[in-house]
Amino acid sequence: MVRYKKIAVILCLVSLSIAEDIKPSYEQTSIKIINSLKSDSVGYNRLSYLCDMFGPRLSGSKNLEKAIDWIIKEMKLDGLSNVKGERVKVPTWIRGEESLQILVPYIKDLKILGIGGSVGTPKAGISGEVLVLNSFDELEEVKYKARGKIVLFNVPFTTYGETVKYRYDAPNKAAKYGAKATLIRSIGSWSMNTPHTGTMGEYTYHKKIPHAAITSEDAMMISRISKRGQKVVLKLNMDGKFVEDRWSRNIIAELKGSTYPEEIIVVGGHIDSWDVGQGAHDDAGGCVAAWRAVTLIKELGLKPRRTIRIVLWTNEENGGKGNENYKNEHLSELNNHILAIESDGGVFAPQGFGFTGSEKARDYILDIASLLDPIGAGTITNWGRAADVAPLNDNGVPVMSLNVDNSKYFWYHHTNADTFDKIDFREFNNCIAAMAIMSYVVSDMEKKLPR
Amino acid sequence: MVRYKKIAVILCLVSLSIAEDIKPSYEQTSIKIINSLKSDSVGYNRLSYLCDMFGPRLSGSKNLEKAIDWIIKEMKLDGLSNVKGERVKVPTWIRGEESLQILVPYIKDLKILGIGGSVGTPKAGISGEVLVLNSFDELEEVKYKARGKIVLFNVPFTTYGETVKYRYDAPNKAAKYGAKATLIRSIGSWSMNTPHTGTMGEYTYHKKIPHAAITSEDAMMISRISKRGQKVVLKLNMDGKFVEDRWSRNIIAELKGSTYPEEIIVVGGHIDSWDVGQGAHDDAGGCVAAWRAVTLIKELGLKPRRTIRIVLWTNEENGGKGNENYKNEHLSELNNHILAIESDGGVFAPQGFGFTGSEKARDYILDIASLLDPIGAGTITNWGRAADVAPLNDNGVPVMSLNVDNSKYFWYHHTNADTFDKIDFREFNNCIAAMAIMSYVVSDMEKKLPR
Repeated sequence: MVRYKKIAVILCLVSLSIAEDIKPSYEQTSIKIINSLKSDSVGYNRLSYLCDMFGPRLSGSKNLEKAIDWIIKEMKLDGLSNVKGERVKVPTWIRGEESLQILVPYIKDLKILGIGGSVGTPKAGISGEVLVLNSFDELEEVKYKARGKIVLFNVPFTTYGETVKYRYDAPNKAAKYGAKATLIRSIGSWSMNTPHTGTMGEYTYHKKIPHAAITSEDAMMISRISKRGQKVVLKLNMDGKFVEDRWSRNIIAELKGSTYPEEIIVVGGHIDSWDVGQGAHDDAGGCVAAWRAVTLIKELGLKPRRTIRIVLWTNEENGGKGNENYKNEHLSELNNHILAIESDGGVFAPQGFGFTGSEKARDYILDIASLLDPIGAGTITNWGRAADVAPLNDNGVPVMSLNVDNSKYFWYHHTNADTFDKIDFREFNNCIAAMAIMSYVVSDMEKKLPR
Repeated sequence: MVRYKKIAVILCLVSLSIAEDIKPSYEQTSIKIINSLKSDSVGYNRLSYLCDMFGPRLSGSKNLEKAIDWIIKEMKLDGLSNVKGERVKVPTWIRGEESLQILVPYIKDLKILGIGGSVGTPKAGISGEVLVLNSFDELEEVKYKARGKIVLFNVPFTTYGETVKYRYDAPNKAAKYGAKATLIRSIGSWSMNTPHTGTMGEYTYHKKIPHAAITSEDAMMISRISKRGQKVVLKLNMDGKFVEDRWSRNIIAELKGSTYPEEIIVVGGHIDSWDVGQGAHDDAGGCVAAWRAVTLIKELGLKPRRTIRIVLWTNEENGGKGNENYKNEHLSELNNHILAIESDGGVFAPQGFGFTGSEKARDYILDIASLLDPIGAGTITNWGRAADVAPLNDNGVPVMSLNVDNSKYFWYHHTNADTFDKIDFREFNNCIAAMAIMSYVVSDMEKKLPR
């Protein structure tokens, strides 16, 4: 026990000495960054432009490629280095027309969003009685009832992680018992008749059945009617299909390091979105926050020792080919990837970062994070492995993920309501500040962030 | 001044003596009503059934008439007296298919809801550049720009009264200057890409142009793009049209007065709704609250001296033929209409009532309202002239309108999100309690409510 105490004291002193190094060295700069962003509208205006001028940015779409063209052009005008699009083949799913009608007990069009990756229905659509279930367990209990039915999983949102399995797996589970199609209650924490799309897992059962999300309101309604012992009949039409893979691009741009240019700190988000709304919080906001963080560092005349590289991954939403490609293209550099920071949880009020890396590295990160306390973003939690940085972490790179107040994130997530008007200027700019300060200090501090 | 003080003292004493009459006489009963409703689910279940089993209840629709059939049947089973449907011819507008697409700067389907009463477009639709305006005043300033355009009024919601004029008048104002169609930003205080329908005023300009609401998100987006000096082109298709007037019904049901059956207290709401969502707050909730209030009075064995009459008006939303018909059919009885209470502002937490009537009557009402303090519904404000009771008030009848916490009312109003799941059990039952206590005491108190 005595020995452990000694180690703890030593660690504590090390930690203090780091704090004494970093905080005084960077406090003034970080305050300058925070203050600059109080009225800076460069990022905000770019986010607005990106959201408004290209439409939603599904992988494989022209919208996405036009948005990428524009960003690359602007990044060059910003004077960033090594600006380029790295080509990536992405799976391309096309929604096409889709509709859902309730036929019994009365006729009315219901809103749906097909789940990305779903097959379509036959041209005449699929009509059928609904079987309402509350869980996969219930499906197992009453599997004999599923044959020939449209199976609706009316599962209320708890957490994304817990609820999303119905979006992923429902068609495989229900097709096994003869279901004609599956519907899920949208994976969202609030609804104004708002369907949420998203990706499904691969079809693993040989019979592929269509899969779509309906609104919470309609899922609850159908469930109530059904509980009264009344029949509900629906008619589903979907055109969804995969076409051949298409070319897209990851965007790269750099602020070259002044002393160790080969050492790289990545900041980024994913530039693709679902084919609804504007993908404003998910994830145009994260992309532009990373981008503006770096151009602001440059504009302030800061010359970090290491390179800060903006990476805007493509195809995060339905394939992950962007992050796979980035890792493969930059394999030889990965040892020099000091840290990779991703923002993909919305650009609401930032709270800090999740971090995955060594305890030694965490000590540094904790000290840097204290510079974010003035904007309430100084808390470091334990999980930095967001989707696009996880493959880097698998290769030993410490990774971080911006944490924000996510109380409304799943109101908008993958819906037509994820639009620029949902972005709060101050909150968004604080996200930029958090990204800028974290990436700047790690790129500039004397010691290299340890692995 | 001295004289006024004396009058005030006398008024105060009169007021006190009324209070002394009413409060002790009815306190126990009102507590009993409130307590009964803590767990009573009769109204809640009926509201759910009404919302779920018939679909939205637009005037002239089968849905509405089926809902009316069911209510009349149930009211007879409840043992209410004089249950009937009083036939009313109602204007019948049919939405048909409608769609809106943004063509420039990119292609995407946008949500719309045509405004009730609008003409349709030609079969091929109307394509055109958008002129975004912020007010009717701005239209006058730039009227020369409106010719050949689709005019969008991007007016943020302030109050319903202030903003609704764009829904009413936009097509007449803009057609005068050659606009091809009008769009409005939906009249709502929150949006998740939620279009709001509602009625327009009559066409007064000889050229009738189509008129629809788009979502706040899309209105803001089009406005932002336009402010950048970029062109926005839209394509609008609408099938909306009036068909011949159809028959509907006002529903009447009574709890007959034990002593003065000819004296009538009306409680009610409107049974029609828009053709979207379930019309849960607007106004199935008000109807069922009035209905349950009366059956609860009956079940508790209370035998009020005067008659309480439930009136569920038809065609409030787009014509007002229901309230007109009620007034005409019951003209000879109007002198004996002691009070008419309407609930048409949602069934959120009740706060009290608006009242329009004499000061003498108000004194009574204030005293009765104090019985509602335990549920926070004891406040009497100055405006009781809701749409369906206003014609009665024009004929001398004191009228009241249930006031509720309306902070979310215009989130849902006239949208697909006005659904049963938005009803809070406790809040709804407190609305029933407020309606029950107010109508019971006025119908039972020794003195007749003065005019």
